[in-house]
Amino acid sequence: MKKLIGAVERLFPMPCPLVVGGTMEQADTLAVAWINVVASTPPTIAMGLRESRHTLELIRTNHSFTVNIPRADMADVVDYCGLATGRKTDKFAATGLTLTPSSLIDTPIIAECPYNIECRVTSETQVGAYVLVLGEIVEVHAEQAILRDPDGDVIDIEALDPLCYIAGSREYRRLGERVATAFEAGKRFMDDTD
Amino acid sequence: MKKLIGAVERLFPMPCPLVVGGTMEQADTLAVAWINVVASTPPTIAMGLRESRHTLELIRTNHSFTVNIPRADMADVVDYCGLATGRKTDKFAATGLTLTPSSLIDTPIIAECPYNIECRVTSETQVGAYVLVLGEIVEVHAEQAILRDPDGDVIDIEALDPLCYIAGSREYRRLGERVATAFEAGKRFMDDTD
Repeated sequence: MKKLIGAVERLFPMPCPLVVGGTMEQADTLAVAWINVVASTPPTIAMGLRESRHTLELIRTNHSFTVNIPRADMADVVDYCGLATGRKTDKFAATGLTLTPSSLIDTPIIAECPYNIECRVTSETQVGAYVLVLGEIVEVHAEQAILRDPDGDVIDIEALDPLCYIAGSREYRRLGERVATAFEAGKRFMDDTD
Repeated sequence: MKKLIGAVERLFPMPCPLVVGGTMEQADTLAVAWINVVASTPPTIAMGLRESRHTLELIRTNHSFTVNIPRADMADVVDYCGLATGRKTDKFAATGLTLTPSSLIDTPIIAECPYNIECRVTSETQVGAYVLVLGEIVEVHAEQAILRDPDGDVIDIEALDPLCYIAGSREYRRLGERVATAFEAGKRFMDDTD
């Protein structure tokens, strides 16, 4: 039996990266659950930000941002970066998070996050009180310790242990057990027409 | 020590809902990991689809789609809906998934998925070989059994047990343990300036 619960803006699960705007000299960061990859040619990330966000001002000035995936044990730091505003406080000083330079853009990455994506802004669209920012992924940094093969680009997801966000019940979780192999598990339904 | 791994289009974790296009008479579905909420006024979902997808044709015809969150134990069915094409095969007949009418749009929802979002298309933008579709959330269906409070709209995430997708290592996982309370855990870093 299903119930209609109205037009709630929830989908499960959501990621919860720290998005950085600005430069090594002046940066701010916030937690963004409304973000995902949306294309691969060119590799593109889309995120929705409230128009009033300080980090958005810095993203507009520099035309770039970084997406930094935190480990599950960084939940309290990430939560703070969503609660506080960089207009009044230095979130890096408050949390101990540190910045290191990116390779291709002026906006830095967060050293403590094991996976970091450098993006150049490609477009910005108003969606009600929000701004949909599209960014082209230009480079990715990964801790050696989270790479499945030291020469490859595939992440060992248990080593990364990424923070997940659950909307509505407002909780952070880690990922759990592996249930199936993608591009493989579905083959049992295939027949000659597929 | 970090390594540069190039412009890979991955972010962790991703959801893996079944997106339906069409009507009760003619529908198709596919698995979409590149999807998330991006705004709340109006409540809006963004998703990136390959231009060649059959379901995209149906979405364009009807100006609507539904987002159906599968349980982790539906991984093989979801995987099949990503592998096969509805141009050649009836994915509902192949998997046993069934459709039921939506409340406000012509595009149906998948009965077996415990959480279903009805969306009306509000815009479509080309991003390289992909199409970024924005849809306004107009109604949500939830199984009574996954509601934390029968009169509320908050989901018991362990009861929903949503399927998660991990790009790169191409695996499906379920969610794991709760690590913190959002909008609460970060307060310990607050001071009088926040």
